[in-house]
Amino acid sequence: MALKGFEDFEIVGVDVSEPTVRYASEHGVASCVTANALEVLPRADVVILCMHPRGIVDFMARYRDDFKAGCLVTDVCGVKTAIMEGAEVLPEGVDFIGCHPMAGTEFSGIEHAFPEMFQRSHLILTPRASSTAEHLALMERLADHIGCADVVRTTPEEHDAILAYTSQMMHIIAVSVCDDPMLFTCKGFEGSSFRGCTRVAALDVGLWTQLFSMNSPALLAALDRLEDNLHAYREAIASGDREALAKKLDYSASRKRKMDLSGPDLLE
Amino acid sequence: MALKGFEDFEIVGVDVSEPTVRYASEHGVASCVTANALEVLPRADVVILCMHPRGIVDFMARYRDDFKAGCLVTDVCGVKTAIMEGAEVLPEGVDFIGCHPMAGTEFSGIEHAFPEMFQRSHLILTPRASSTAEHLALMERLADHIGCADVVRTTPEEHDAILAYTSQMMHIIAVSVCDDPMLFTCKGFEGSSFRGCTRVAALDVGLWTQLFSMNSPALLAALDRLEDNLHAYREAIASGDREALAKKLDYSASRKRKMDLSGPDLLE
Repeated sequence: MALKGFEDFEIVGVDVSEPTVRYASEHGVASCVTANALEVLPRADVVILCMHPRGIVDFMARYRDDFKAGCLVTDVCGVKTAIMEGAEVLPEGVDFIGCHPMAGTEFSGIEHAFPEMFQRSHLILTPRASSTAEHLALMERLADHIGCADVVRTTPEEHDAILAYTSQMMHIIAVSVCDDPMLFTCKGFEGSSFRGCTRVAALDVGLWTQLFSMNSPALLAALDRLEDNLHAYREAIASGDREALAKKLDYSASRKRKMDLSGPDLLE
Repeated sequence: MALKGFEDFEIVGVDVSEPTVRYASEHGVASCVTANALEVLPRADVVILCMHPRGIVDFMARYRDDFKAGCLVTDVCGVKTAIMEGAEVLPEGVDFIGCHPMAGTEFSGIEHAFPEMFQRSHLILTPRASSTAEHLALMERLADHIGCADVVRTTPEEHDAILAYTSQMMHIIAVSVCDDPMLFTCKGFEGSSFRGCTRVAALDVGLWTQLFSMNSPALLAALDRLEDNLHAYREAIASGDREALAKKLDYSASRKRKMDLSGPDLLE
């Protein structure tokens, strides 16, 4: 939906789900929609794989000989090391650039799709050393077309280490907060900080089980740091030393202010 | 600003800060603004105390003999037990209803005020056993006027136990996440879950030091539950048992979906 009108590309949607294909046809999501990848894969100049991580890896292995020579394959997945390794299966001459748009909601399914989703978001790319300048330039123009704020280039390893912190940890916090026995009694007593922190707890279980598992060393390291930082606050509060607590809060609040993060927040 | 036009009340603003009083006059925030509480307190039918918690307690003690007989005193503070105890100092015939509107941003100061802030928020009331029906009805109409979604009545103790979870814990999470050494390197890699979770870390240090300290038993209990729930997720990920992890995620995500929280989210 966001790609519509991108240069002179014809946009073809492929999905194994019959209801999704029907919805896409009825809503004009693409110029053409099919459940049969083989029908369109051999003539696709750019292939964007938008399945769960294992689905992406499996698709590349299964269809390795059906990609068009010289084409660009990319994805939208929240882990990159495992995807880049999976892409090794592609034949010589098929380029792969890992991609992770930092956009999304807690909802799944085509009925929750909307073309503005990528607006003002970061688009992270993990190219191969051999990725062509033409394909990188294409991804930059694509990011611009769908409304991204910027394009950030990094390695798969750095992506996974940082995303364990900025995304996966946020999801573990959200589900952990929802495990609190007070969850249901607190209705009527919650404000925007609670909604902001717990929103993503309503997650796609299959997807996130894969993301957490495929990036567990970095995620465990991030969670250990979080446990330490939370516990230090617990101890500062327990000590009753208000001056020390104020100093600690001042330190953290200053760090946050220095970040000055602005961006779209898909909360309604 | 939100009270403007509420029935036939004259709205008088009082603040000790000269720049705040000037800003309020210049922007027509109230019908009349003064730095001298004694000028207006003896003729006020309703007094809304909007300082930090200790400021509220001190104000009531200092001006206990200057309130109008039969008036209603209320507040907007995030702890209620300490405030209700402080209100014991008020003379017979001066009513007090504790109040906590679940609305706010991470910004302080009158220049960040806007009249729509309370829209669709909960307004929590902790009345005294002796609070009059007239005063309770007044608070209900006031909540309606400023746009609140509903009015929730509870005890100060229940308020403080629940708010330790829904609000104070969210702030401790936000500052703890910002203490991570990766904070500054992660710029460009963050999405809305990170912004939603860390937004409130840019907090008013003086205010929150008081709120955390004045409610430390309930907050420590909430933080202990969080540490346990986070650690259980850490162990589920470390075990490598994907089925167990998926089951756990399904449990938490279902709880979140059952909550179905909607409300205003002051993120831009």
